[in-house]
Amino acid sequence: MSTDTDLRSGEVAVDAPLPRDASLYFIGRIRTPWTSRLETPRQGSLEGPVCRLEIFEPWVAALQGIEGFSHLQVLYWLNQARRDLVRQSPRHHDGETRGTFALRSPVRPNPIGVSTVRFVALEGSTVLVRGLDCLDQTPLIDLKPDRCVFTPEAASDHDDGK
Amino acid sequence: MSTDTDLRSGEVAVDAPLPRDASLYFIGRIRTPWTSRLETPRQGSLEGPVCRLEIFEPWVAALQGIEGFSHLQVLYWLNQARRDLVRQSPRHHDGETRGTFALRSPVRPNPIGVSTVRFVALEGSTVLVRGLDCLDQTPLIDLKPDRCVFTPEAASDHDDGK
Repeated sequence: MSTDTDLRSGEVAVDAPLPRDASLYFIGRIRTPWTSRLETPRQGSLEGPVCRLEIFEPWVAALQGIEGFSHLQVLYWLNQARRDLVRQSPRHHDGETRGTFALRSPVRPNPIGVSTVRFVALEGSTVLVRGLDCLDQTPLIDLKPDRCVFTPEAASDHDDGK
Repeated sequence: MSTDTDLRSGEVAVDAPLPRDASLYFIGRIRTPWTSRLETPRQGSLEGPVCRLEIFEPWVAALQGIEGFSHLQVLYWLNQARRDLVRQSPRHHDGETRGTFALRSPVRPNPIGVSTVRFVALEGSTVLVRGLDCLDQTPLIDLKPDRCVFTPEAASDHDDGK
């Protein structure tokens, strides 16, 4: 067993059946500069590097009009995360454990990441954005206009978060 | 065919294979006051009615610590939505069509709703929140602390959205 899947002190895994309540399409693939977890930022920056959302057919036509939005919400599938932990001890929490739903850890029953990103450009079937914090080749499951209307442009320019 | 699944003028459906790239757990069930789409609000209000997130086993232990957060991000599965439209003409858009990814419509390849809600209380295995806009009995797929740190309390008190 790799160190990635070992349990830390206080962590609790459950015996869950195989998931089959609903199924997802991977509608595309995310290209980022990060190829290992160690170099991937914990939280994306709206001033971070440009990343690419490569959309697969038959979904490319669904991009029409996307360039009208300054910020998008991106959903992706954290396919390297285990799904059976209900209590976790994140690396930066000094050994304290917390319930999975009280954390934004990628380890969760349904490992879906949600990020708000800044729209940069549309190039054919690829959307360029800033603000992601996931590994290169992460499967994309959705993108839509962001609803976080209170994000002031000036404030987000100086924040490393969202 | 019901009127819900008829195409409007300009809408485009694609011939997509069955989705099977990844599978989801329904980790719980959302209880809201709305039992038909006509009465469901288009966008939740943080001052709206209290709704209940009923968590199923074996995931209840994952709630530990959730009460420390004022706002949560809730992900749910819009199980009544069709999944094959790439261009849509939403009811309030006066016949204009737009790409699915340029809309927050529930009709999308992966019909996942994302809402920011206000935490109200934890009662056993049920989380009480305000701010949802989905039908009663909607399957729940995730909840986690919200990252929309720029939402000022005063502003959200007077807004009907986000």
